[in-house]
Parts: sequence; structure tokens; C-alpha cells
Amino acid sequence: MRRFVVVGHRAVTDQHFKLDDLAGGAGRLDVLLRCVNSAFFLSHDMRRDTELYLVLQGEPDPPKCLRLVGSELRYLNPDERSTGALVRNALMKKAEMDWTRSTPGIYISRRGLSDVLEELSNDSELVYLREDGSELGGLPGGSATFVLGDDRDLTEGEEEVVRGFGPRRVSLGPRSLHTDHCIVLVHNALDRSD
Amino acid sequence: MRRFVVVGHRAVTDQHFKLDDLAGGAGRLDVLLRCVNSAFFLSHDMRRDTELYLVLQGEPDPPKCLRLVGSELRYLNPDERSTGALVRNALMKKAEMDWTRSTPGIYISRRGLSDVLEELSNDSELVYLREDGSELGGLPGGSATFVLGDDRDLTEGEEEVVRGFGPRRVSLGPRSLHTDHCIVLVHNALDRSD
Repeated sequence: MRRFVVVGHRAVTDQHFKLDDLAGGAGRLDVLLRCVNSAFFLSHDMRRDTELYLVLQGEPDPPKCLRLVGSELRYLNPDERSTGALVRNALMKKAEMDWTRSTPGIYISRRGLSDVLEELSNDSELVYLREDGSELGGLPGGSATFVLGDDRDLTEGEEEVVRGFGPRRVSLGPRSLHTDHCIVLVHNALDRSD
Repeated sequence: MRRFVVVGHRAVTDQHFKLDDLAGGAGRLDVLLRCVNSAFFLSHDMRRDTELYLVLQGEPDPPKCLRLVGSELRYLNPDERSTGALVRNALMKKAEMDWTRSTPGIYISRRGLSDVLEELSNDSELVYLREDGSELGGLPGGSATFVLGDDRDLTEGEEEVVRGFGPRRVSLGPRSLHTDHCIVLVHNALDRSD
């Protein structure tokens, strides 16, 4: 299983946002929606062996976490707008500590970053993608969880949380890249090593 | 210089499309807009050494070609919708064989696939990205032009045009990928070999 955890620092936490304003009023939700695309889409197929956790930390009701499960997903299209509508549906649900199902393969909970990493670290190695990490070739096979920021790096507090789980630090190359592009590169590196 | 040529088989060729319907009425223009994102965006920076050619072959007035020049681009945001608006502006211009400037770094012309490849093959090696190509590691350094389809492979006729330029055939791994994801992988491979 490949898992990605993306921290949406200002991503909206209720359903009152406009699909025409995903990059503005929705707190750069557009960044997270592009991560949904790169986590799951293959040409005319989907990555069923992947899960994506979007940690939403924006107003008015943080934190919330969306969990997208590749093996269960339906009704997913590659464009930002239609995925934004699915996220909005999920945010209409009451968020509790347990996962509540919204649409097929999309769940919501009240969990924050540390809750999510706590859950995932039980059965997979944690990888923190950083420019000063080791070479991409060092990616672990088997089950791994990759942690990334949105358009902003993790804060010092968030880094401390991640460090508490003893992650491997991996770099994806010499340039600083968008989060959704990082996910494409991780998938490709794992595809080649499988 | 890194150049990408993407064939938009059904991509709209006038300005009468809705920004809310990029994946439908605009002939999968959303696919091409995601290619704009992956061709040019770095984290808090842009790839100035890149040009992207979008060959639009849909109704009502094909072919047209958009040329995006990284060193000149301004007003570009990562989301599909705002880039869609820039494309619409360009499609309001009259398309002639010479390039007509729309907004900074965005040009339009009446050229089709063979015209574009003819122009680019003068000073750069042509690379055709195919699943049965040779390994990614074989990417040429220096100036190269990468040719890709949109959500559909090149037609037989288009393949014949490309083959006429004696391209190198390169594969990006064992899975069949979206076009914008392919562009991310090419950039990363070239970044690492620079």
C-alpha cells in the first residue's frame, strides 16, 4: 500500500466555499485537489493500491482529515472542479474521531496530523519528502507513508510531530517542486522498483 | 531549451467555451491546462527554460496552435480555471501562420502538428514518449522536443507525421500515465542529468 499525507495549512473545513474560488476562498484547496489527481490517476485506470490523507487545518472548524481510498473510489474525474464538489460533499458530514463515509472511497474524520501519523505508522514506514533528504532511489518498497506540505512547507511544530515518528528523509531531485508533482515522482519511482 | 508538444485531439478552437465545462464542452481542454501547470511550475518559481506547444484540433476552426514561452510568461496561476481564461483570450485573436501574441508569453497561430514539428526539428532532437520506448535514462541533454497525445494516443496519421522526423522513442516506466504526469517525469529526469 502506498499512502500520502498532505497538510493543507489553510484548507477550508466546512462546505461553504465556491467551486469557482478553490485557490482563494477555499484556502488553496486547489493544491490538494491536484494531489488527488496525481495520487490516483493512471491513463484510463486508477491506482487502487493508494490511499491519500488530506489534513485540513483552515477555518472555521479545524482540524479535519479526508481519507481517499483507491480501492473504493468511484465518481472521480481528473479535473479540480469535480473533485472539489466531492470534497464539499464530505465536508457536509459531521466529523468525528471515527471515519465517516461520504461518497464511495471518501471518508472524513476529526483527526489532525499527529492522529493520522499515529494510525499509519503502525504498519508502514514513514517517509518525509525534503529537499535535503537522501536520494530518491532509497525509497522503501512495500508499505510506505509519504508526508508532504501543500504550497507551504511544514511548520516547525508539524516537523516536530513528523520527526517523532522517526521518518526516513528523501529528496526528489535538485529543484523545489509542487506537491502534486512530488506524488507523481514517488509513484514512478515505486513503479520502477516493483 | 526543453520543449513539449501536446496534441489536443478534440480541444476547442474558438473562444466560446465555458470555464465551468473545461472537461466537457471545451473538448478535454482540462488535460492541456494541466500540462501547462506541469510544464512551467516549480515551487515558488517557474521553469523559464521551457516552451509548450498545444496543438488544438477540435471544432469549429482547426488546426490552431498555442505557444507558451516560459521566459516571457506572466499572470499564470497553477489552477486550471485561470489558465483556461488565458487560453480563451488567445482564442479571441485571429490565428494566422505567423505567431500572434495574446498575453505575455502566450502566442497563437494557424499551425498544425507537422508545421510545429517542422519548425522545432531544426534545432532540437525530437523525442516521442511511448510505452514501448527505450529507458527514461536515455533522455537527451541539451535542447529536446517531447511529443505527447492528450487523453488519447496519437492517431496513425499523426504517428506517421512524427516518425517522419526520425524521433527517439522513450518510455517513462511500466505504467500508462496521464500526459501532465509524463511532463513532470521528463522535467525531473532532465533536472537530475543537468
